[in-house]
Amino acid sequence: MAILFQNAWILTMDDEFRAIRNGWLLVEGRDIVDLGEGEFFGDCDERIDCRGGILIPGFVNTHCHASMIPFRTMGDDCKDRLRRFLFPLENEAMTPQLVYLGAKYGIAESMLAGTTTFVDMYYFEDEVARACLQTGMRGYLGETIIGQPTCDYPEPYGGFELAEQMLEKYKDNDLVHPILAPHGTTTCDEACLRRAHELAVKYDTLMTLHVSEMDYEMKHFADMGTTPLQWMDKIGTVDKHLLAAHCIHVSEEDARIMGERGASVAHCIASNTKAGKGVAPVKALLKDGVPVGLGTDGPSSGNTLNLFDQMRLFANFHKNENRDRSLFPARDIVALATRGGAKALGAENVFGQLKPGMRADIVLISLEEANMFPVYNPYSALVYCANTSNVRLVMTSGVIRVRDGKLVHTDLYALREQLRREMKPFLAAAERYTDII
Amino acid sequence: MAILFQNAWILTMDDEFRAIRNGWLLVEGRDIVDLGEGEFFGDCDERIDCRGGILIPGFVNTHCHASMIPFRTMGDDCKDRLRRFLFPLENEAMTPQLVYLGAKYGIAESMLAGTTTFVDMYYFEDEVARACLQTGMRGYLGETIIGQPTCDYPEPYGGFELAEQMLEKYKDNDLVHPILAPHGTTTCDEACLRRAHELAVKYDTLMTLHVSEMDYEMKHFADMGTTPLQWMDKIGTVDKHLLAAHCIHVSEEDARIMGERGASVAHCIASNTKAGKGVAPVKALLKDGVPVGLGTDGPSSGNTLNLFDQMRLFANFHKNENRDRSLFPARDIVALATRGGAKALGAENVFGQLKPGMRADIVLISLEEANMFPVYNPYSALVYCANTSNVRLVMTSGVIRVRDGKLVHTDLYALREQLRREMKPFLAAAERYTDII
Repeated sequence: MAILFQNAWILTMDDEFRAIRNGWLLVEGRDIVDLGEGEFFGDCDERIDCRGGILIPGFVNTHCHASMIPFRTMGDDCKDRLRRFLFPLENEAMTPQLVYLGAKYGIAESMLAGTTTFVDMYYFEDEVARACLQTGMRGYLGETIIGQPTCDYPEPYGGFELAEQMLEKYKDNDLVHPILAPHGTTTCDEACLRRAHELAVKYDTLMTLHVSEMDYEMKHFADMGTTPLQWMDKIGTVDKHLLAAHCIHVSEEDARIMGERGASVAHCIASNTKAGKGVAPVKALLKDGVPVGLGTDGPSSGNTLNLFDQMRLFANFHKNENRDRSLFPARDIVALATRGGAKALGAENVFGQLKPGMRADIVLISLEEANMFPVYNPYSALVYCANTSNVRLVMTSGVIRVRDGKLVHTDLYALREQLRREMKPFLAAAERYTDII
Repeated sequence: MAILFQNAWILTMDDEFRAIRNGWLLVEGRDIVDLGEGEFFGDCDERIDCRGGILIPGFVNTHCHASMIPFRTMGDDCKDRLRRFLFPLENEAMTPQLVYLGAKYGIAESMLAGTTTFVDMYYFEDEVARACLQTGMRGYLGETIIGQPTCDYPEPYGGFELAEQMLEKYKDNDLVHPILAPHGTTTCDEACLRRAHELAVKYDTLMTLHVSEMDYEMKHFADMGTTPLQWMDKIGTVDKHLLAAHCIHVSEEDARIMGERGASVAHCIASNTKAGKGVAPVKALLKDGVPVGLGTDGPSSGNTLNLFDQMRLFANFHKNENRDRSLFPARDIVALATRGGAKALGAENVFGQLKPGMRADIVLISLEEANMFPVYNPYSALVYCANTSNVRLVMTSGVIRVRDGKLVHTDLYALREQLRREMKPFLAAAERYTDII
């Protein structure tokens, strides 16, 4: 099966940031095989007229808890949400079926927004894997490992068993990549992080966790005379396998260590600033060579599952923090949302660019809506003007998942009704927290 | 003509923030005449089934230069844009027809985003009035008055003549409200601001200008031992007629003076932070009783013409600045974008709430798209989840302007083609600035 995109404004995101104003791109099987300017004269099975729209590598969401859809708009402005109602409600009311349907909904929403790869950390994570395989989403999936009983395991750290099952089950899968997901630096102990790291090395995969995010976390380590990241480094868990989420409060020394060890960061600007927590020092991290990707966080924390919001907030926050409108030009921000994410996952040679040999994870952005005119600089249009309604077509591994702005394989309304029914016991449990809903 | 909205989640934005989950609202002529819960048993000419969607007062955009559409995505990340290419290109290539078509496009985009009232400041402003009357947009329109020759007047301060013509021409118009728009505190002299203020008093209308926005502006007044706002106050131009745009760098004393005098602020968070200029102290301004509305600024500065982006950026920036996620709960932010804007324009008794006697400026937000589920808190959904694609229907003064997410009276594609043709000389002029396009 060969699919041709033609009449496209191709932003390759390659080393030279090559952009082709009137370009074509050919996909065969699951990969991109060729691209060029003007007209394509070869054979193909399907021609897609992009009508001058922008073709980019699919967005890479480096931190998510997609199955938390049932929590969205619940107590958004409420303090200490994690311990007040998120943990308790999860333990009480999360079920495998709710995780599955939540993941499927979250994936549907993500795909409609042009995301082709996401990193997910939750419970019953194998249900998220099932949703990925059904929908064609590329998932880096980590079963949560945490030092307390959870909805899917009665003993602390039971997540190891479930994670190891996934590591064996999905060896060499094109879409599903099991990773290690210890929860955080204060919710896991030293032995847990060491073991998670050992498994990440053994299976040559990622270890992701929440780092330098919470005030109480910073205080906990400050009382010990260190930082979360330096403690992790001391116990030998900071290296190329680490994808540290948030990193709001990392110090200059933390950044230097991460750069030296090859660790990456998932930067969640929407979630962090909505929570009033601060802005991660991304300029410094990049200067130290730390790969940084963008992340939405879960729909309970960041609310939307799209990288457009992340790019816009990224631009405004980092320019404003540094009092410099020329810092992080739009092109660099699009790079963070695509190739930068792939690099943070150690997959820069697999996806994140539009060039021969890469997976065909491709998004077509329409310029036909009111907000997308005129377009002198396509990167500017993507960062400062675009929103999810401009996503016209999405392909992962060579298969079209969204066409004409609609999901090809999923009936969103039927899925929502299914989810609504499945959420009933969850809602009954949530109603006791009268101040949040 | 009586139009009924039924099956709606009505957010009235009245003094009690009354919300009706399953409500109806009746419009007759240009006003709202009644609303209630459950079913409506009276007569009407048209029934609109809102399918459980959210009904809100239309958004009020308190600061815009809509006709700057031709500049969008030009040199977004470039320093000193105003003097480097915006002023020169405007003077060289702006024409009445380009202003008219730009305004019509900007209004179309704004309406599709749920905005029913906007404040606009530009050249050939009577062309913007023409666009408002044709499209049904409510406009507070100020011809720019500035101490230099412009595209529409060869002498400095020639805008006065054009502004006075508009003040006479649109007396008591329901949609078009002429205002005074001296450009800024360093681009206008004392005599200009005094005269503009006198006219605002004479015609009982607004005077709007850029205040405390630019670094060089702050330095100019600091060298004189004062602030822009305190200088304006000293020359007697700060009172209830003043709508000060931006106010990024206002001091505590400035805020106190504005509160005492009854002056208002148009807060442009997207434009200000994208430019790396800083965040206006809105918490302090509101504490001092200063009415604050939200503004998009022009499409060249803020890029989008929708209040959803402003609300989201407002939430994240102000919560983050104050390190407090509970500050400005979503409900208060929706209030700023609707009733707060009306109050800033001195029109709180005319629009900005859904209650009998108010103008029927109404927006229906659909909950059917992927990003709008679940919705426990409708204000949260509007601020943290929604985008322009959720706008289903828009009414101003009792007339439906957007239905099923499409403009009723304007062919957007034809308009774009017209604008594209009209932009040719503008583009030829712009091409000399090779680093910006």
